[in-house]
Amino acid sequence: MAAPRYDVIGIGNAIVDVLAHADDDFLVRQKMPKGSMSLIDEARAEKVYAAMGPATEISGGSAANTMVGVASLGGRAAFVGKVKEDGLGKVFGHDIRAAGVVYATQPAIDGPSTARCYILVTPDGERTMNTYLGAAQNLSPADVSPVNIGDAAITYLEGYLWDPKDAKEAFRKAAKAAHDASRTVALTLSDAFCVDRYRGEFLHLIRDRTIDLVFANESELKSLYETADFDTAFAALKRDARLAVVTRSEKGAIVLDGGKTEAVPAFPVERVVDATGAGDLFAAGFLYGFARKLPHAASARLGALAAAEVISHIGARPERNLADLAKENGLRL
Amino acid sequence: MAAPRYDVIGIGNAIVDVLAHADDDFLVRQKMPKGSMSLIDEARAEKVYAAMGPATEISGGSAANTMVGVASLGGRAAFVGKVKEDGLGKVFGHDIRAAGVVYATQPAIDGPSTARCYILVTPDGERTMNTYLGAAQNLSPADVSPVNIGDAAITYLEGYLWDPKDAKEAFRKAAKAAHDASRTVALTLSDAFCVDRYRGEFLHLIRDRTIDLVFANESELKSLYETADFDTAFAALKRDARLAVVTRSEKGAIVLDGGKTEAVPAFPVERVVDATGAGDLFAAGFLYGFARKLPHAASARLGALAAAEVISHIGARPERNLADLAKENGLRL
Repeated sequence: MAAPRYDVIGIGNAIVDVLAHADDDFLVRQKMPKGSMSLIDEARAEKVYAAMGPATEISGGSAANTMVGVASLGGRAAFVGKVKEDGLGKVFGHDIRAAGVVYATQPAIDGPSTARCYILVTPDGERTMNTYLGAAQNLSPADVSPVNIGDAAITYLEGYLWDPKDAKEAFRKAAKAAHDASRTVALTLSDAFCVDRYRGEFLHLIRDRTIDLVFANESELKSLYETADFDTAFAALKRDARLAVVTRSEKGAIVLDGGKTEAVPAFPVERVVDATGAGDLFAAGFLYGFARKLPHAASARLGALAAAEVISHIGARPERNLADLAKENGLRL
Repeated sequence: MAAPRYDVIGIGNAIVDVLAHADDDFLVRQKMPKGSMSLIDEARAEKVYAAMGPATEISGGSAANTMVGVASLGGRAAFVGKVKEDGLGKVFGHDIRAAGVVYATQPAIDGPSTARCYILVTPDGERTMNTYLGAAQNLSPADVSPVNIGDAAITYLEGYLWDPKDAKEAFRKAAKAAHDASRTVALTLSDAFCVDRYRGEFLHLIRDRTIDLVFANESELKSLYETADFDTAFAALKRDARLAVVTRSEKGAIVLDGGKTEAVPAFPVERVVDATGAGDLFAAGFLYGFARKLPHAASARLGALAAAEVISHIGARPERNLADLAKENGLRL
């Protein structure tokens, strides 16, 4: 098998984040469950935007953030996701390419506008998200190139792709193309509410080995197995998945491989400014290390470092070059 | 004379800032004089944007930033400036209204798109700006309401308004309306390069008392009087202007009133993250205090505080409520 051209190809919703500070009362008044990601329609999007304070626009999208992290570590990354050819679509395309990620998905020329995620950052650094999927809903199998997928060590998919109605076909096409080329398929469960919407399908994807590598945080894992007890959920995951990484915020992460587990500590952070992107960047570090065949613990440490960087400032993409940061911290790349 | 409805009405270019980090080499390669504001056309705007790194979009515009500062101090502020009815125009309108500023200028429905300022922030916190004026160029006298102008204690104008070709007529109409209502007209010289473009006209505006209150920083003042010596420039200003405030970065500010001068120190800042908006926010504090008839030194201290807040983070608008910050620092409001 030839050396892959890409370390990772990510497929996900192409979204521009619209961030504003908000107090807890705002969330209560707007009936937003704190820390959740809610899907909203265009009418609700207009209302949320009108109610929220002055904002900052910055490119986001979970898998897109992860690909930017892979590139920042020195990895070869590509992204597949749909924007419209409008102002925010142009912003999304510029930012991901300027970060060194190959991005060639054709923008939609009509239909709904580029997806936005209205993110309310409360004083504790927690983020509450309201996503208007817009043009991201039009991602289709035609946007997935089996040649490119076959040329990536890992194809990384968002659980969020189950929300836009046609994207799951793109997801399945990509997973098949990756396996046809003997590559790895990874999935992030994305969000506990997302897991709640698609629990059965996600379990099926994991159990039938459509997915080789699962990323989850504690609440997503508990949601997947409908239990309040972490150990119960983790034991169930051990039965279902061969390879998985579970992140536990300041408690670090656990890597599961063929029944064996390994715990990796978190990196200390002086102050959590904005938790947005922590999971996305953890995945970036692990995926980079996995693609470069590092030991799991070394990959997870890169993930922990990337997560620590992104939560120390506003925005879900790294501000520092992560390869430099890894070197400064004596981590293997 | 009735109590004015607004403390300040600002008139300026309605601009969305597009901020990215850059190293000094980037400025050299792009032939951008460090610290300057250059006007660029659409073709050059496309080239600059393609070359620059991942960016953040955040509403800006000098006088608009100042009005947000006035509102954040608890003042009643309004803004007049032109956007197009496009994605960035919507962002501009949302952000300034969400900050509590009255903004009612009709957006253009065709013609060039909303103005952008590409801001390169170097590691020293200095910013180098490239402005594409776009829709802001279509600000016209029809956008200025003499009734509203007459209802503001101060009308605050940007020197940058001399760049769009029709805006100076809007500027003159506003100044006349303000004086007809016995109000104060203030001008910021905006930028040393801007002064260089319109030196004769600015001097004329000051000397014929179209302008009652002048804001300038050291380099703008030196440019106005074409001298490298600050004292020479300041002596000339003393002859030409009755009322002026000259800001000198970490050296603080000097208020000139009828030949008497008063020096006010700067607020200490732990680390300058992004100098964008320092002058705009200094003006906000001074204008608020002036409108509320505070002593000049107290007004200048509010300006120094607002400037210190805005340079301690990325973006040219305050992140903290400035009235709260003033109270915490024992300043009179």
